[in-house]
Amino acid sequence: MSKKSLTKRSEDYSLWYNELVKKADLAENSDVRGCMIIKPHGFAIWEKMQRKLDDMFKETGHENAYFPIFIPKSYLSKEASHVEGFAKECAVVTHYRLKASEDGKSVVVDPEAKLEEELIVRPTSETIIWSSYRNWIQSYRDLPLLLNQWANVVRWEMRTRLFLRTAEFLWQEGHTAHATAEEAVAETEQMLDVYADFAENYLAIPVLKGVKTESERFAGALDTYCIEALMQDGKALQAGTSHFLGQNFAKAFDVKFADKDGKLEYVWGTSWGVSTRLMGALIMAHSDDSGLILPPRLAPKQVVIVPIYRSDEDLEKISARVEEIMQDLRKAGISVHYDKRDTQRPGFKFAEWEMKGVPLRLAIGMRDLENNQIEVARRDTFEKTSHSLDGLTEYVQAQLEAIHENIYQKALEFRKANTHYVDSYEEFKQILEKDGGFIYAHWDGTAETENAIKNETKATIRCIPLDNPQEEGTCIYSGKPSKQRVVFAKAY
Amino acid sequence: MSKKSLTKRSEDYSLWYNELVKKADLAENSDVRGCMIIKPHGFAIWEKMQRKLDDMFKETGHENAYFPIFIPKSYLSKEASHVEGFAKECAVVTHYRLKASEDGKSVVVDPEAKLEEELIVRPTSETIIWSSYRNWIQSYRDLPLLLNQWANVVRWEMRTRLFLRTAEFLWQEGHTAHATAEEAVAETEQMLDVYADFAENYLAIPVLKGVKTESERFAGALDTYCIEALMQDGKALQAGTSHFLGQNFAKAFDVKFADKDGKLEYVWGTSWGVSTRLMGALIMAHSDDSGLILPPRLAPKQVVIVPIYRSDEDLEKISARVEEIMQDLRKAGISVHYDKRDTQRPGFKFAEWEMKGVPLRLAIGMRDLENNQIEVARRDTFEKTSHSLDGLTEYVQAQLEAIHENIYQKALEFRKANTHYVDSYEEFKQILEKDGGFIYAHWDGTAETENAIKNETKATIRCIPLDNPQEEGTCIYSGKPSKQRVVFAKAY
Repeated sequence: MSKKSLTKRSEDYSLWYNELVKKADLAENSDVRGCMIIKPHGFAIWEKMQRKLDDMFKETGHENAYFPIFIPKSYLSKEASHVEGFAKECAVVTHYRLKASEDGKSVVVDPEAKLEEELIVRPTSETIIWSSYRNWIQSYRDLPLLLNQWANVVRWEMRTRLFLRTAEFLWQEGHTAHATAEEAVAETEQMLDVYADFAENYLAIPVLKGVKTESERFAGALDTYCIEALMQDGKALQAGTSHFLGQNFAKAFDVKFADKDGKLEYVWGTSWGVSTRLMGALIMAHSDDSGLILPPRLAPKQVVIVPIYRSDEDLEKISARVEEIMQDLRKAGISVHYDKRDTQRPGFKFAEWEMKGVPLRLAIGMRDLENNQIEVARRDTFEKTSHSLDGLTEYVQAQLEAIHENIYQKALEFRKANTHYVDSYEEFKQILEKDGGFIYAHWDGTAETENAIKNETKATIRCIPLDNPQEEGTCIYSGKPSKQRVVFAKAY
Repeated sequence: MSKKSLTKRSEDYSLWYNELVKKADLAENSDVRGCMIIKPHGFAIWEKMQRKLDDMFKETGHENAYFPIFIPKSYLSKEASHVEGFAKECAVVTHYRLKASEDGKSVVVDPEAKLEEELIVRPTSETIIWSSYRNWIQSYRDLPLLLNQWANVVRWEMRTRLFLRTAEFLWQEGHTAHATAEEAVAETEQMLDVYADFAENYLAIPVLKGVKTESERFAGALDTYCIEALMQDGKALQAGTSHFLGQNFAKAFDVKFADKDGKLEYVWGTSWGVSTRLMGALIMAHSDDSGLILPPRLAPKQVVIVPIYRSDEDLEKISARVEEIMQDLRKAGISVHYDKRDTQRPGFKFAEWEMKGVPLRLAIGMRDLENNQIEVARRDTFEKTSHSLDGLTEYVQAQLEAIHENIYQKALEFRKANTHYVDSYEEFKQILEKDGGFIYAHWDGTAETENAIKNETKATIRCIPLDNPQEEGTCIYSGKPSKQRVVFAKAY
């Protein structure tokens, strides 16, 4: 395989993904098992996501805070299903000091510096946060409490994959406290809407909104809402979750408030999060065999300009004009980069920016300069147009919008084409093997059937869509009666 | 002590600080030893610092990336002085799984899930980053490499204090790689200037720029540059450091590059960082017995407006006008909050915003409305002025600038008044005990003298100022000859 070209998606989707992540300089594996290094280009995209999501959280009344990375072991145990969900993948700190080995040649853990109680590197922060909420909440006046934190978390996964499943990942976790169940449910649903809005309007990925079945719920939640996206290989990816926690954590950590009549009640809670996994969704939803395709609203560099020149004198003339173009573009809020490296040829630069997913590439040579024009190439369609330098900013703006719309529509059409309604288990298995995609099928509502299907086919129930149409039917597996179809898929 | 008032600085500076941090809702101790919880108001200030610093790093050509939180134990040992500096305060991960205890009542560490090699929660990231640089750097074309990361780090401190010294803290760490020593030194100095610029123009704190003595250097550096600020109790606070690493980490991790002639050379490095410690500096440099005083350029809410009203009808009229005022202020880039809570009286609100350090408080009642005016109160001087609603935005803008200038000048004058030149050890000890402050004194340049003075007086050499005037003198402690004065102080 040459250094530049990618394995084709049709040949090996999984290899294509791994190669793309590395060649587009997004991330790589570190020497620490399962932990990734997010490289500058990847991190710049994540930063754009963070900024936008953070704005959306603040617009809906949330504030940021920061809680400790360590959780005392005993805290995890306070909510029974929570500890069951996380105990098997915890990084445990047991000591707080190293010392020189006896031969003086290395360092060893100092056995005398053993912690009385082990500390867990947070896999999620409900327990440490609700333990604080006990001190912060006394009365209905202290509610709602609407906090979020941006943090790193660790879950000791055995099989890891860059962005999709890593031992350490970056995320945000919202943790809110409310006086009533209704208000907490409304918050859970609001944040799901925020995530769906972000997915569609920034990632340019259509998502299904739904609720998880009991066996797929967050450990400690009464209800888990989710957004599910479909990748180009027909597998689903859970892109965000929002949990209605009921009073589970309030009871585990004894968080009560006095209502207006002075009566003590347990507080209602929610939590919700998205992570660097979204990077995986972004890559797999849009990109092609030439590399990454970035949704324009999340592209750190929306436009790259490449000069085509023979002499230093030409370059100087071109550069002078490019400076003006860049000023205009920047005034319009467009981020633009001028690639005037003299160590690389234009063809190399074109391929590099294609691989890195820059939405629009502008190229300008002496002939263009004389004709007052510039070449505009779209990353999503590879279309090239010569456009006048007059009105260029407006054209670029319109093209960026057009790219967003185009890749969103393409993903939506792909989802439509890969959404199936099946009424028999045979058909279910056939479609699952052949095309994948979202499969709407009747299910009898039991965990037994859900597990049996999962064990036999690797397909899971991704969600029960919100506002799901109710219809009589029979379970494709057990033949028992069913009131609605649910969405099955193989998933990341 | 009432819930509202603080212990006076003159009575107990240390207690005043602790109370202020809690009452201004900046941070609190968590249940995890030495780890703090940064509360929303504190975190909002930190976010403003982050944004501005991040902009400054990007303007000087740096990109963000993210490296793993865990460092294999063996990596720490590769640079000899580095491991010596950090081994004694490392949080060590030894296991990756918990399991139910035999009685089923709690969870215990699963002894079968022991890591082959222990992982250290990063106290700083030189080792894991230089281990990556080995793969990223081959040729002079790959240099300079200018990266930064925003991260949490852990140093197991035995005596902790909110913001000033905590087991976990938030920071940024820049890590750069260069082809020549000169370029690396220039980078080290440039980042020191960025920090000093930020301290003076955003924190409103004058700082001394200098270099550390050998014994105060970062573990693994050839030179540590620092900015030192003086707090109101006469103690110094190191507010940022920038390290010239020479080729130490390149040698430890075998990072070489081919120069233009194809010759292999070790790479030159720097690292530089500031942390949530800056929150401590901000608090201690400016605040008073009524609470926090925020420098306007870092205040999350620069202006708070409080309505003074008797009836709902009045409130409605006032609010309508306030909406217009806020629109104008926001257009001018001023962040403003309207505090129309009906659960609290104006006096309570005034005290609360004073405690939280909001630079300008505006109050408006029916009489003001009729007279087309508003009351403007400055947090730094407590001055109150009635100002016409015409031209209010310009006035507010000017007042915010005036507050920045005033608190900076106040801190500068305090530093001048508390800067002493002494020529005898007796005088040195007297001033140190009585007033503290920066003490310029001759030192013989030996670590022995430095340590002796430290042991006897707790004063350390904060720095040797940049461009330090050279003058003949004799060491205040040993009487040996000296070429320059250095700056001593007790420090946080």
